[in-house]
Amino acid sequence: VTAETQLGPGAEFDAIRALLERWGPLAVGIGDDAATLAVPRGEQLVASVDAAVEGRHFRRGWLSPREIGYRATAAALSDLAAMAASPVGILVSLVVPDSWRGELLEIADGIGEAARISSVPIRGGNMAGGEALSLTTSVFGSVFTPLLRSGAKPGDRVYVTGSVGGSIHALRAMEQGEAASRWRERFAHPIPRLREARWLAEQGATAAIDVSDGLIGDARHLAAASGACITLDAANIPCVDGVEVTDALASGEEYELLVTSASPIDADAFASRFALPLTEIGRVERGTSGDVRVIGARVANVAGHDHFSR
Amino acid sequence: VTAETQLGPGAEFDAIRALLERWGPLAVGIGDDAATLAVPRGEQLVASVDAAVEGRHFRRGWLSPREIGYRATAAALSDLAAMAASPVGILVSLVVPDSWRGELLEIADGIGEAARISSVPIRGGNMAGGEALSLTTSVFGSVFTPLLRSGAKPGDRVYVTGSVGGSIHALRAMEQGEAASRWRERFAHPIPRLREARWLAEQGATAAIDVSDGLIGDARHLAAASGACITLDAANIPCVDGVEVTDALASGEEYELLVTSASPIDADAFASRFALPLTEIGRVERGTSGDVRVIGARVANVAGHDHFSR
Repeated sequence: VTAETQLGPGAEFDAIRALLERWGPLAVGIGDDAATLAVPRGEQLVASVDAAVEGRHFRRGWLSPREIGYRATAAALSDLAAMAASPVGILVSLVVPDSWRGELLEIADGIGEAARISSVPIRGGNMAGGEALSLTTSVFGSVFTPLLRSGAKPGDRVYVTGSVGGSIHALRAMEQGEAASRWRERFAHPIPRLREARWLAEQGATAAIDVSDGLIGDARHLAAASGACITLDAANIPCVDGVEVTDALASGEEYELLVTSASPIDADAFASRFALPLTEIGRVERGTSGDVRVIGARVANVAGHDHFSR
Repeated sequence: VTAETQLGPGAEFDAIRALLERWGPLAVGIGDDAATLAVPRGEQLVASVDAAVEGRHFRRGWLSPREIGYRATAAALSDLAAMAASPVGILVSLVVPDSWRGELLEIADGIGEAARISSVPIRGGNMAGGEALSLTTSVFGSVFTPLLRSGAKPGDRVYVTGSVGGSIHALRAMEQGEAASRWRERFAHPIPRLREARWLAEQGATAAIDVSDGLIGDARHLAAASGACITLDAANIPCVDGVEVTDALASGEEYELLVTSASPIDADAFASRFALPLTEIGRVERGTSGDVRVIGARVANVAGHDHFSR
């Protein structure tokens, strides 16, 4: 059954048909009230949802329509990476104002790009009009043993993938109208660390979270869930070129992974496998649950990224 | 681990903590990047997403905050009913403008009510600020054999649960400022027909869809997916008291079920079991795929409900 024949007439369904045509084989089994998903025998299903809202997570002009679609989808998939899950499907719920209708297929191309690089089919969705563009992406993955926030133990080493700090600088530049800042790509094109997360879980990682609220904010979430505290060493934070460590610690929406491990992880093996650094940046310790201390930086007032207080 | 200790500080997380406290035991295992869901061995997972957007699907003042939360969640769960699936979890993604923050817990109560009557836990979510209130609900269910839109065959009987037409009248009344119309409850408090759907599937139903775009619009979807046409008999449409059949045929967001079956279904048994009528309203026939004819009513211009053209 093709998309042409699955839905009745109407402007909403014409738009959905246009999306399905654009996605081609990336969109699988669309057309029923719900999508049917297969989870490999013995594995658990994990599910998460993430929203990207115009005026809150991005502004028109900051990102191209394609980048808006890509970034929203990649950010949602990053939550599966944090669980070390393999993606099995995504649902895309779009609120598309009339003023954005002309860009719908470009947005779809970005969603498709993120799905393609993550090898995950688009399994359904929903579309409505509204005042502001928003993309709400539900993601499903499967995993034998999910990597949780709560698995860290005192004594564990703390690692971060890649480098951080580019997103906050890109945001500042864009807020000042400097669309082509050197950090722009870090904001516009995050890569969900899906394969990296599965490898880290295989190496014995005990807990993980993706850096969406900022390294300190997310370290707090992980520490709180694990009933421990975390000490980070400012000198070891892998900052994006030209970014100060205090900014790197606060920068949200980086979508790198913060992971803990009882035994050392071979960072060279990680780097050669994924062409990405893996850096030991601190330790899990006994102490007040949820506390994060940073050695070597004045960060008393560094708050995590917080959409409501932005 | 309680909600108190799972998340770090911040206004967004305070709001999430307040929601979790309000939901109590209805919210299960929240606090990781993704929720882990169990699907009974041998069953398939089905997933769907639905959005309710202020100014598009509802207006402030039409519904109480509690009703807004209830209705958005019930509408999403109705998609699982259409697949004859048993709900296993929901994810709630909220965009909450500052002007709605004071009503957040009442909205949560409505979401909780819909979850409670459907016996489904709230397994996660997401919250952000924005210009208009929106609720995007992802629902997951499990089912041994999903009931699809595509299973109808020529000769099948067509049934509808309950009665239809109240929603369109309630909408008209509310648009004219008559908040307390006699049909209001039909709009504000739809019941997802979850148990009914499973029973109908056990009785041999061949295809189903929930009535969200209007009886004619949804019959077209089902007919198109099944490669058949459908003839409805206007005289048999179970209209809500005081509603004309042409309105009943066009009324969207009813969340009743349109089902097909090769053999007759015992409507008396259905009615006594669920205290709800089940009515035979037409036949699946050979013909142009997706065509819907109505005998005994002038409905040439009856369009399905369409969010984009409203």
